[in-house]
Amino acid sequence: MNPLTQQWHLQFFDHFVNLVRSPDGDFESIEQLANDLNQPSSLKALIEKLSQNLQGKQAFQQPPRLGYVNLQQLHHLPPKNLGYHYAEHVTRQVIQQDLTPFHENPLQANSDAEFLVAHIRETHEPWHLLTGFSTTIIGEIQLQAFYAAQLHGYRFWLALLAKNLLKSAVFDLDISEQYMDTLTQGWRIGKQAKSLLGIEWSTQWGLAFHEVQA
Amino acid sequence: MNPLTQQWHLQFFDHFVNLVRSPDGDFESIEQLANDLNQPSSLKALIEKLSQNLQGKQAFQQPPRLGYVNLQQLHHLPPKNLGYHYAEHVTRQVIQQDLTPFHENPLQANSDAEFLVAHIRETHEPWHLLTGFSTTIIGEIQLQAFYAAQLHGYRFWLALLAKNLLKSAVFDLDISEQYMDTLTQGWRIGKQAKSLLGIEWSTQWGLAFHEVQA
Repeated sequence: MNPLTQQWHLQFFDHFVNLVRSPDGDFESIEQLANDLNQPSSLKALIEKLSQNLQGKQAFQQPPRLGYVNLQQLHHLPPKNLGYHYAEHVTRQVIQQDLTPFHENPLQANSDAEFLVAHIRETHEPWHLLTGFSTTIIGEIQLQAFYAAQLHGYRFWLALLAKNLLKSAVFDLDISEQYMDTLTQGWRIGKQAKSLLGIEWSTQWGLAFHEVQA
Repeated sequence: MNPLTQQWHLQFFDHFVNLVRSPDGDFESIEQLANDLNQPSSLKALIEKLSQNLQGKQAFQQPPRLGYVNLQQLHHLPPKNLGYHYAEHVTRQVIQQDLTPFHENPLQANSDAEFLVAHIRETHEPWHLLTGFSTTIIGEIQLQAFYAAQLHGYRFWLALLAKNLLKSAVFDLDISEQYMDTLTQGWRIGKQAKSLLGIEWSTQWGLAFHEVQA
């Protein structure tokens, strides 16, 4: 049942340990792990699972892309609008940390698998915004557990949760209680909330933020 | 702040990966990880933390040992008694799986640190019994999270939770949802329940099971 090779395992566990030993937000190490875990066979099984409900099925039939996001324009929308909140969030949480918003480097999506990876990546900030989970490590753990709950069996998010638990066990025991609390909370909210998979964000900017969030 | 050496890290991460790749219940690999994580400096900090409340403090001042457990004798107690339930549990869950009950090989306890390790080990089955968490991998994960909640910052239990999440991510994705459910449940119950640390089980066998459990 396990299509992953011995070589894959060696590489994956190397990358996992490397990530545990890296500082939070080491995107190169995170990307390595994502590459290991986004194997075609894994993604195929996941897509089948996600397509079992209508919303998931539609996402793959008519894949919504985030597209170009004009933050300045969104910033001129009324402050109650989702677009305004999004521009605020990306400016404060991403650009001010010297990071490039994912929408500026959209990934190719010529297959269901490529779409899924691109979609998860480019909607990461909308998911932060909608869930209200911050971009600190605490908020990221909440969101990782939320992803794990909403995208049943997405290897990458489970591995990141395992990474963070192990990291706190080895390097920062005092934070472990908060990690477990936020993991539990993110999982619970992710199971209760409506699925965020496949939402076409580019058509939502003009809506009231609190309505979309509800 | 981190007293653990480079050599320690290499060894620990080797043992961790080894445990992820081992079948469930590989006690040799679990023991290796426990030895890595029960470093004197870790245990010292933990004992200070656990001693901050009266129950914890008393446990180290008058360390209760499980002592010799006569299962046959306990089996003759009335079926409502804790002792009868304990004999049933150990017979069915431990001995029938060809395992040796921990009470048959008690560890030495000549210091607070040695007592803590011995106590956690020899009260593992009473904790299973009281919490109602089974001895399947699902029950073990619940109990690991319960331990993590009750013994704030016990490295070993956090590492086992990380191990199980990673293991499901790599080897058995279909079980990951159940793992996350039981992890979050064990954590929640562990935080809400009265502390089980330092209970002198040998004086409780004659009590009614449901009263002790309540």
